[in-house]
Amino acid sequence: MENEATAAMTTIEDLWAEIDSRCPAHEGIKVALESAVGKTASEPVLAPQDYPSFDHSAMDGYAFAEIAPGECRVAAEIAAGATSPLSVSAGECVRILTGALLPEGTLCVARQEECIRDGPTVRLMSGIKLRKGDNMRLKGGIFPARAAILGRGACINSGVVALLASLGLGRVCVHRPPVITHIATGNELLAPGEQAVPGKIFDSNGAMIAALVTERGLELHRHRIRDIRPALERLTADFAGDLLLISGGSGTGDHDHSRGSLERAGFDIHTRRINSRPGKPLIFGTRGAQVAFGLPGNPLSHWVCFHAFVSRVITRMLGRPVPVLQHSHCPDWDAQPGDGRRTWTPACWRVKEGRILAEPLKWEHSGDLSPLARANALLLDEPDPETRLIKTFLL
Amino acid sequence: MENEATAAMTTIEDLWAEIDSRCPAHEGIKVALESAVGKTASEPVLAPQDYPSFDHSAMDGYAFAEIAPGECRVAAEIAAGATSPLSVSAGECVRILTGALLPEGTLCVARQEECIRDGPTVRLMSGIKLRKGDNMRLKGGIFPARAAILGRGACINSGVVALLASLGLGRVCVHRPPVITHIATGNELLAPGEQAVPGKIFDSNGAMIAALVTERGLELHRHRIRDIRPALERLTADFAGDLLLISGGSGTGDHDHSRGSLERAGFDIHTRRINSRPGKPLIFGTRGAQVAFGLPGNPLSHWVCFHAFVSRVITRMLGRPVPVLQHSHCPDWDAQPGDGRRTWTPACWRVKEGRILAEPLKWEHSGDLSPLARANALLLDEPDPETRLIKTFLL
Repeated sequence: MENEATAAMTTIEDLWAEIDSRCPAHEGIKVALESAVGKTASEPVLAPQDYPSFDHSAMDGYAFAEIAPGECRVAAEIAAGATSPLSVSAGECVRILTGALLPEGTLCVARQEECIRDGPTVRLMSGIKLRKGDNMRLKGGIFPARAAILGRGACINSGVVALLASLGLGRVCVHRPPVITHIATGNELLAPGEQAVPGKIFDSNGAMIAALVTERGLELHRHRIRDIRPALERLTADFAGDLLLISGGSGTGDHDHSRGSLERAGFDIHTRRINSRPGKPLIFGTRGAQVAFGLPGNPLSHWVCFHAFVSRVITRMLGRPVPVLQHSHCPDWDAQPGDGRRTWTPACWRVKEGRILAEPLKWEHSGDLSPLARANALLLDEPDPETRLIKTFLL
Repeated sequence: MENEATAAMTTIEDLWAEIDSRCPAHEGIKVALESAVGKTASEPVLAPQDYPSFDHSAMDGYAFAEIAPGECRVAAEIAAGATSPLSVSAGECVRILTGALLPEGTLCVARQEECIRDGPTVRLMSGIKLRKGDNMRLKGGIFPARAAILGRGACINSGVVALLASLGLGRVCVHRPPVITHIATGNELLAPGEQAVPGKIFDSNGAMIAALVTERGLELHRHRIRDIRPALERLTADFAGDLLLISGGSGTGDHDHSRGSLERAGFDIHTRRINSRPGKPLIFGTRGAQVAFGLPGNPLSHWVCFHAFVSRVITRMLGRPVPVLQHSHCPDWDAQPGDGRRTWTPACWRVKEGRILAEPLKWEHSGDLSPLARANALLLDEPDPETRLIKTFLL
């Protein structure tokens, strides 16, 4: 037990480097565009055709074969969506709507507000000058076929979905999202909704992680176990997902079974304790491509360790660039005196005149969840004494 | 047609005020905690009991009935989760683990690292001084029963979920999320995945809105109609959801059926044209508590109008505070010259030394989707010439 208690603590940066080296992006899978939101492109996407894919009108108006037409006969009308190619010659024009295929021979399109229609003929209003190409959008004008429109690692947001859809792509290759399991351990745990009993506490970590995983559009399997050791050994041995999170029992006491269970299930343990607070007992292990964390059971520590470390593994598996610490302004605050470990502090950030202001949310102890209701950032260390800038994860 | 074409344009602020006055928060419904993420509390939540709900130990150690104990007999052991109340008297102590119910009579808890265990007895290490209350967490110490722990309108994030779960609350009242329908109209529309045909374009707006609605954890019903007028009239008349979005046909041309269909279905039209670009033709109407938008079909305009206006309706229905324009820094850019209408510009923001820097993403025309792949902000107007700050929605 002496060796355990005094085992060297891993630094934050060393754990990040360990995660980065052991958690590659997952393989690519092809999914429907609608399922791809929030995922990451696993290969570059090339335009399957020119974009736009045909010459069309940018406006409702008239297509002409000359730039200074006189009175012209309206030879035809083309609605948006019409697919039969027409043509236009000098002395005539074609009535056209926004988005419609241009007739062959079109030199310019005049907007309908610039024209005077008189029964079967049209002439330009006086003073209207047209130039070649006016109100025409040409095939390939935004990008040609085979152009790289999305790089590997690009996040699929609503704009990317629209861009791919506009190219006719109904499916896209993304890094397979991780399947995550959370096991809340503890004889003292009740499920929310059960009758309160002195000596027992409600499991909040399972619901918290479910919320965090839902926010990321991912899948979570949840367990809550009281008869800890045999149940935990079975669940870790049988674990078939990508990321296993065990809540509680990550320390070195007689009732702490996380590390033993992971080791007996074949996980290599790379980290046992982290030199930051809250959350000193922190296990990080791998079994092949599978990753496991033993996380402190105290809810505040659980939340902090998720954002500081677990989230990085998810980000890596999704093939996304890892988050970097930004800076926020923190005018009137200094971290509470610690025990030499670096301190994470939940915070609430907002924008004021183009600057990010962080308000640290004080925590009484690592069982105190009340600051988290407003938390949208995580601060590390203390503000720089001169600039008052503080290292910040915007969540 | 003259009256239509010259109808006064609504200002951005007037449309926002119209939305705010016509779109109250939806009624409250009770949902499971896990389904509440991203929703908004529809009534205040009071703590159902003291929190913590019983006196417990903050550490693994020994509970004493005196602050300067001599050698004490270990009278009992209490594990976390044990529910039978014990007591401790002077001259004895109780072995206790983190989170366990304190024995009656406890004055302080000594951490196990501060104690020397010798078979059946324990004594403090030399030099260790205890104070009353050391390592004890008292019932109600964070908040008492009936304390207001969440206000009406609070967003249910992962921290709130954990806080409510820790109080044993398995369900919470939230404003009912809106049910949204999107109808893409146009003879020219193909579904992504269909064969490209010159003259036809792929519907990207349906997929875009599906992505935006998915990101918000909401439900979308989608339609794509080519035989526009009868299908649109049927869909608007039968509409039974909360928010109806019609893509395309929002102008005043012969082929524009959005306004007519909405009016015949009993919607009151409050706005027909908006004084901002891209996206001049913009219909906003209501039928009782139902809201409808006729949105421009050009994809960039569609995206901008969603973020500038539609998103505000969703936010209102969810009972959340409406987004306010923030400021970002925009060092080297001036808006493209416009036609007098105020200009929205998609942008990409990032943090540098505590400041928000916005990079405007230039758009060629309102059919150009390529800027949206990187867009995470929407800028309004031009930067202030002196400060270079620009009004910004962070998306």
